[in-house]
Amino acid sequence: MSAIEDLAAELAKLPGIGRKTALRLTYHLLKQSPDQSRRLASALVTVAEQVHPCERCFNLTERALCDVCQDPRRDATIICAVEEASDIGAIDRSDEFRGMYHVLGGRLSPLDGVGPDDLEIGSLVERVRGGGVREVILATNPSLEGEATALYVQRQLAALPVTVSRIARGLPVGGDLEYADGVTIAQALSARREMR
Amino acid sequence: MSAIEDLAAELAKLPGIGRKTALRLTYHLLKQSPDQSRRLASALVTVAEQVHPCERCFNLTERALCDVCQDPRRDATIICAVEEASDIGAIDRSDEFRGMYHVLGGRLSPLDGVGPDDLEIGSLVERVRGGGVREVILATNPSLEGEATALYVQRQLAALPVTVSRIARGLPVGGDLEYADGVTIAQALSARREMR
Repeated sequence: MSAIEDLAAELAKLPGIGRKTALRLTYHLLKQSPDQSRRLASALVTVAEQVHPCERCFNLTERALCDVCQDPRRDATIICAVEEASDIGAIDRSDEFRGMYHVLGGRLSPLDGVGPDDLEIGSLVERVRGGGVREVILATNPSLEGEATALYVQRQLAALPVTVSRIARGLPVGGDLEYADGVTIAQALSARREMR
Repeated sequence: MSAIEDLAAELAKLPGIGRKTALRLTYHLLKQSPDQSRRLASALVTVAEQVHPCERCFNLTERALCDVCQDPRRDATIICAVEEASDIGAIDRSDEFRGMYHVLGGRLSPLDGVGPDDLEIGSLVERVRGGGVREVILATNPSLEGEATALYVQRQLAALPVTVSRIARGLPVGGDLEYADGVTIAQALSARREMR
């Protein structure tokens, strides 16, 4: 396989990029200076080698603790639990929330074989049990699995002295948090309701 | 800038990939094994370092001469001139043409400051003058600039003992050869007319 076909094949493995788009991107890179390909390559290697989950909240980071956990200006008494690390950026851009996060690492999905032990639910319970947390906002996606996951987490936290809330259905049901706009996310956060 | 933001910024430089898509691709890669990112990175570096224009036809290759120029089964008496190296794959997939190619490297575009000397037109004339070529098919895109380029090249070749033809307008006018399907390209090639 030639170098060009090889690069196109690797690009075509990315989601949403088919064979023709991969070829188009490859030829685009060939028209640019080789430095652009090298910068992209080096960014890929850096991410592959240095990015890992935060020890405390499982956000992605290059250090032991992520930027959010290290930021002393953030409110450590409130934790927003999300499915994926990519949801954190979407919520932070809404400027409605300045607390901490907890990345569950997915959602309960029996059909895909994803049970409670596959998610970072135990570690969230431990964080709350450790004290100093007054509220946990469950910001899993407004899908069937996201709701089931929120319900399950709420029950795990029910015995602890903490308020558990769920983001409001400002988000279109069946949608995906990662693609929502900041205003919608802000509304969903400010209209959150306590779970009982 | 973090490693994640850095990779997203590099991906967002690619055509058709915006900031959100770049972030989505980055998080996708983070969920895969690091090996996938490394393979993509290595494919990028290989292309950046080893791919360059063919000495004869300016197709992209990792050697002195490209695969097409090295293939003894191809008909060396007929040359298909295209705007970009990426057009070669599209034409070859149509299975209508088994001759040689010549990559002009773009099209005449006075508004963008692209004149005849910026394209590989002189080298095409030299190839024909070298002998052994009975036909040159002008397969520039069926756009205004592509037609102007074909006309210019035809005039440069007019004094030489060679047939100059233009691919037929089976291609939708204003379209882009790179995205056409094989059947359309095959029809355009077989219905080509001699330019006089």
